[in-house]
Amino acid sequence: MAGNTFGQVFRVTTWGESHGPALGVVIDGCPPRIPLSAADLEEELARRRPGVQAHATPRREPDQVEILSGVFEGQTTGTPLSLVVYNRDVRSRDYDALKEVFRPGHGDFTYQAKYGIRDHRGGGRASARETVARVAAGAVAQKVLDRDHIQVVAYTLELGGIRAQNLDEGIIWDNHFFCPDAAAAQVMAKRVQEVKAQGDSLGGVVEVRVKGCPPGLGEPVFDKLDAALAQAVMSVGAVKAVEIGAGLAVARMLGSENNDPITPGGFASNNAGGILAGISNGAEIVVRAAVKPIPSISREQQTIDLAGQPRSLSIKGRHDISAIPRIVPVIAAMVRLTLADFLLRQRTIK
Amino acid sequence: MAGNTFGQVFRVTTWGESHGPALGVVIDGCPPRIPLSAADLEEELARRRPGVQAHATPRREPDQVEILSGVFEGQTTGTPLSLVVYNRDVRSRDYDALKEVFRPGHGDFTYQAKYGIRDHRGGGRASARETVARVAAGAVAQKVLDRDHIQVVAYTLELGGIRAQNLDEGIIWDNHFFCPDAAAAQVMAKRVQEVKAQGDSLGGVVEVRVKGCPPGLGEPVFDKLDAALAQAVMSVGAVKAVEIGAGLAVARMLGSENNDPITPGGFASNNAGGILAGISNGAEIVVRAAVKPIPSISREQQTIDLAGQPRSLSIKGRHDISAIPRIVPVIAAMVRLTLADFLLRQRTIK
Amino acid sequence: MAGNTFGQVFRVTTWGESHGPALGVVIDGCPPRIPLSAADLEEELARRRPGVQAHATPRREPDQVEILSGVFEGQTTGTPLSLVVYNRDVRSRDYDALKEVFRPGHGDFTYQAKYGIRDHRGGGRASARETVARVAAGAVAQKVLDRDHIQVVAYTLELGGIRAQNLDEGIIWDNHFFCPDAAAAQVMAKRVQEVKAQGDSLGGVVEVRVKGCPPGLGEPVFDKLDAALAQAVMSVGAVKAVEIGAGLAVARMLGSENNDPITPGGFASNNAGGILAGISNGAEIVVRAAVKPIPSISREQQTIDLAGQPRSLSIKGRHDISAIPRIVPVIAAMVRLTLADFLLRQRTIK
Amino acid sequence: MAGNTFGQVFRVTTWGESHGPALGVVIDGCPPRIPLSAADLEEELARRRPGVQAHATPRREPDQVEILSGVFEGQTTGTPLSLVVYNRDVRSRDYDALKEVFRPGHGDFTYQAKYGIRDHRGGGRASARETVARVAAGAVAQKVLDRDHIQVVAYTLELGGIRAQNLDEGIIWDNHFFCPDAAAAQVMAKRVQEVKAQGDSLGGVVEVRVKGCPPGLGEPVFDKLDAALAQAVMSVGAVKAVEIGAGLAVARMLGSENNDPITPGGFASNNAGGILAGISNGAEIVVRAAVKPIPSISREQQTIDLAGQPRSLSIKGRHDISAIPRIVPVIAAMVRLTLADFLLRQRTIK
Repeated sequence: MAGNTFGQVFRVTTWGESHGPALGVVIDGCPPRIPLSAADLEEELARRRPGVQAHATPRREPDQVEILSGVFEGQTTGTPLSLVVYNRDVRSRDYDALKEVFRPGHGDFTYQAKYGIRDHRGGGRASARETVARVAAGAVAQKVLDRDHIQVVAYTLELGGIRAQNLDEGIIWDNHFFCPDAAAAQVMAKRVQEVKAQGDSLGGVVEVRVKGCPPGLGEPVFDKLDAALAQAVMSVGAVKAVEIGAGLAVARMLGSENNDPITPGGFASNNAGGILAGISNGAEIVVRAAVKPIPSISREQQTIDLAGQPRSLSIKGRHDISAIPRIVPVIAAMVRLTLADFLLRQRTIK
Repeated sequence: MAGNTFGQVFRVTTWGESHGPALGVVIDGCPPRIPLSAADLEEELARRRPGVQAHATPRREPDQVEILSGVFEGQTTGTPLSLVVYNRDVRSRDYDALKEVFRPGHGDFTYQAKYGIRDHRGGGRASARETVARVAAGAVAQKVLDRDHIQVVAYTLELGGIRAQNLDEGIIWDNHFFCPDAAAAQVMAKRVQEVKAQGDSLGGVVEVRVKGCPPGLGEPVFDKLDAALAQAVMSVGAVKAVEIGAGLAVARMLGSENNDPITPGGFASNNAGGILAGISNGAEIVVRAAVKPIPSISREQQTIDLAGQPRSLSIKGRHDISAIPRIVPVIAAMVRLTLADFLLRQRTIK
Repeated sequence: MAGNTFGQVFRVTTWGESHGPALGVVIDGCPPRIPLSAADLEEELARRRPGVQAHATPRREPDQVEILSGVFEGQTTGTPLSLVVYNRDVRSRDYDALKEVFRPGHGDFTYQAKYGIRDHRGGGRASARETVARVAAGAVAQKVLDRDHIQVVAYTLELGGIRAQNLDEGIIWDNHFFCPDAAAAQVMAKRVQEVKAQGDSLGGVVEVRVKGCPPGLGEPVFDKLDAALAQAVMSVGAVKAVEIGAGLAVARMLGSENNDPITPGGFASNNAGGILAGISNGAEIVVRAAVKPIPSISREQQTIDLAGQPRSLSIKGRHDISAIPRIVPVIAAMVRLTLADFLLRQRTIK
Repeated sequence: MAGNTFGQVFRVTTWGESHGPALGVVIDGCPPRIPLSAADLEEELARRRPGVQAHATPRREPDQVEILSGVFEGQTTGTPLSLVVYNRDVRSRDYDALKEVFRPGHGDFTYQAKYGIRDHRGGGRASARETVARVAAGAVAQKVLDRDHIQVVAYTLELGGIRAQNLDEGIIWDNHFFCPDAAAAQVMAKRVQEVKAQGDSLGGVVEVRVKGCPPGLGEPVFDKLDAALAQAVMSVGAVKAVEIGAGLAVARMLGSENNDPITPGGFASNNAGGILAGISNGAEIVVRAAVKPIPSISREQQTIDLAGQPRSLSIKGRHDISAIPRIVPVIAAMVRLTLADFLLRQRTIK
């Protein structure tokens, strides 16, 4: 009810603040007898880690995850998995200046309004650092999906207005922007340098494709698969829009254009993005998320303080220019968590 | 878990098929001592009713709702409200031809894949008729919101590519398209006639604005208010994209453009759409939904039957040209249900 | 959250007041393709019906249940089942005298304290009449259990201090007390007549045995099968104690007496009542419930009214002498609902 | 769904195995601005700790709890609290002999049946050690109850057949048995020595009294306060029966004896145990739990191994003679968790 739990069968509860002792996640409902070690979680965590990308924040987060329960002799036991990542390299003093001020575009104002108290250090619970727990859990979810040969591919479709034209999945992890178009990635790099020089930040679009999802996943009427994916993806901090399949473009299509003809070999097009009436149809599931620019910018901004008095603010320190590409594995994780949950839910329909 | 329940405190469970005996909803968690009668639900139900709009399906659905429990001497008692709408004017024979065929763009194929059985008559549970229960429940939710003076305004922003330029809320219910721009509504009417003549259908965009929402609603991290609204709105059949505030446009903004400056008098702009870090900030909440064209068209389409054999299909009978405007009160209802739930959830934070 | 829903996968939500228009239940999560008709629910409903038993209340409740959704051509579809029983023979005037008075042993005082309003007619939502929905839902749950050959046997073990000595399951439904001991039933009948003459009422004990339950059902640590059964059975109005297996007697056993030895052929005794560490072990599940005497008695009692003033009260009208035996099918229903839910939950462990 | 979460608003999720690296609990939904430090949790944890009591297991468990999130500058923030207790003094080798054998009275057999894998070391997740997380969470729950001046008193009512006759709450923590009757405690001590010498173990009864609970807590119809307490208490490993108020004795009472008369000053008796129709009535809440003897005994027992072959077993090593009194703070914790949850749930009824 307080919102830190996601999923019904494959159920994750995350906890932790950016500058507290640790962050973590408890996964309840992971099936038993799945091989699992901390090393299995490292690849995705590395992709989310700042500093890996050329333009990203220099804060070092080794993000070493420990598995504190639920694994015995290298396999899951069916009991809760507790994953913990300790915070190191925490420089809370950097945030002393922000204690009394609400940063525009951040949760400072709303957390204060909601709780009457907030941990101002690095955004506290509202920090992007919270997503480390999502990514770790998502890697476990992928282990569940692996048994059914379901793959989740995520990448940067657009950054700062530059859009990938080719979708070469093989090169996604080969460039700093997790972009499937090498040429676009080069233009993105230039754009990032320009904006960095201006003390500003950039938004973009992330796309996720799910391959091998069997038909039948999703629950009418409120827990439609697309509705659940929309919640999952919109729950990632910087996301302001979610599209399924043709997405916004459907608004200007005719029915005869938008309907995907069905053939004995499958769907002849995929405007539906793999989901019909909230249930997967066996085609590729396609989800896109619009990501807003990082709100922490060094350009001067207008705001107020705790007392309601006007203040002007210029945010210094180590900050990314864009949530992209670090957000790519986070959004992928949310899609994985959603699918693992619905895959297990579908087992009760028999 | 099977997806027919929405909300945590203000909790609705809907049931019923298009051509079964009735549809309904049970509302658990409605606070006691709220004046309520069936008449209170009529206005919103009337807006959703086909035949009210010029171009809409001629099927008569008087949609008279009965309250079977939870009200005593004109007030809610705190026990479950059971609302029922009986189906009348049901012509199931119309659907005999569709028993063996999967209509493109509909849930026929996926329901069959999921359950191994389906009620093919009028879409069964996947019918737009299911939304009558949502609208009735939404009208009750509004009663809860009324106590805190929270208003939900919904309208057609775009239909068939024609976009409202003026937002005159006073005229929304005065035209057949629930459009806040009278001139645009006239162009829409022409466009609908053209497409009708071609046996095709249209999509569009619905926008919802919430006024008077206090700051503090929404639960980090998975049940962010925008995430919950995204699920709520995406759970409406024809919706394929959901935007909050500036929505998709944030992808191409700079941080300095996108951040809403904070002043002693409130936020100086509203790209955030009233939600920061998943929590309402006191500004107007703005949600948009992209609505796909009605998939039932009389133009010939390619599909398969239960045996997997190719079939060509032309859907005759009474069908709307667009889910708009009937979908407007449905999307408004989902927003109301979400807000009533979060308003009550926030009471536990004390 | 407001407590009218039970179960996680096989999920029932009940609604309705004793003297409102109807009572009912929505079942979400019932697997598809189970043959079901209203007639299937009649047998259990008949056992719960007053007037069937010699000493029971003369109010006629035909309790004809209607299935309003979720069944197509005689089979469940996987969508919600809506079951409704209309109230007839409702004489609300009988309760006018009780409008201002809190009946001892009833929920009058606590409903008023909780909600600040209550439907005083016949106990409203707190009426035993509410259980008609549970019994109907339990009959559907049994259909799910039937597929795995799980049987639930329930009976009166004790009434007014008279305890069954023989457990002849074959005669349970042959006597007015649903007692597996014909001789005990005759003594019970005499005891009931005596107490009736005194204007008083009786308590007793109901026992339930589940046969054929596979090992493995139940979820550590809070949703242990015995914990869930305890909640389920204690949620029936008149129940004040729940025992599993040897129950209270374990408090005075030695470990060497209480432990059930395990042999290649199964457990050599069954003090555990078929549940170890909260998980079924394949032996018979044994649950007992202590049932308090009906609080509505014609003997004069001391109470207060809405204004807090002392009142003396003698409750006239049609009332049972004991919740037994009508409560027997209700408790059986709660056990069935619990088991059906855990049976389906166990499917996700794979 | 997998059973490791308890509560709806005040929601705890526990994790951890007896011989894994750590055990812990995440508390979501704790209200903000409650003063909290690890020291606040120590008193209850100390009561649960083995070795404190004369007859208890000599294993040292310092049980130092760390708060990893949710507290800022000494106060809760409204975000999840993560509490961790690291396992030390873990001698897993002691359990090697039990790897292939199912101990009678333990969860070995059922965990294997459910999951097809189990951590055999010290009972794994089924260990009584799991309750350290419950007690820590219960201490936080008490902080919530403190704000409403609700007190929970728990004690040993009976051990090995010896029953407390006096209820002197002031001396509960002054004797090794947490017994409110000093004379009875002395007899208990003798009984424990006898049984210890025989290599056997003892059961007993724990009673809990809640003082200062306001009327109105509890949710009809399935989440009655007594139903929730029954689940909560029965979810503690060794408990086989739960009574509310007069409990089992109601079965042999007349209605005129059992009904608690209501006077302007309150209820004249308390057979109801403070709960009517599932809702607290303002009187003292009384719950009793029957606790089975510890199943680990050194006397020889009959069982089978993983291959289904007969084995005889005598369990050596450090084991308590009874779950009493260590279980007393555990049962108190479950009552606290239940009440804190219902107290917060009641806030939505307005």
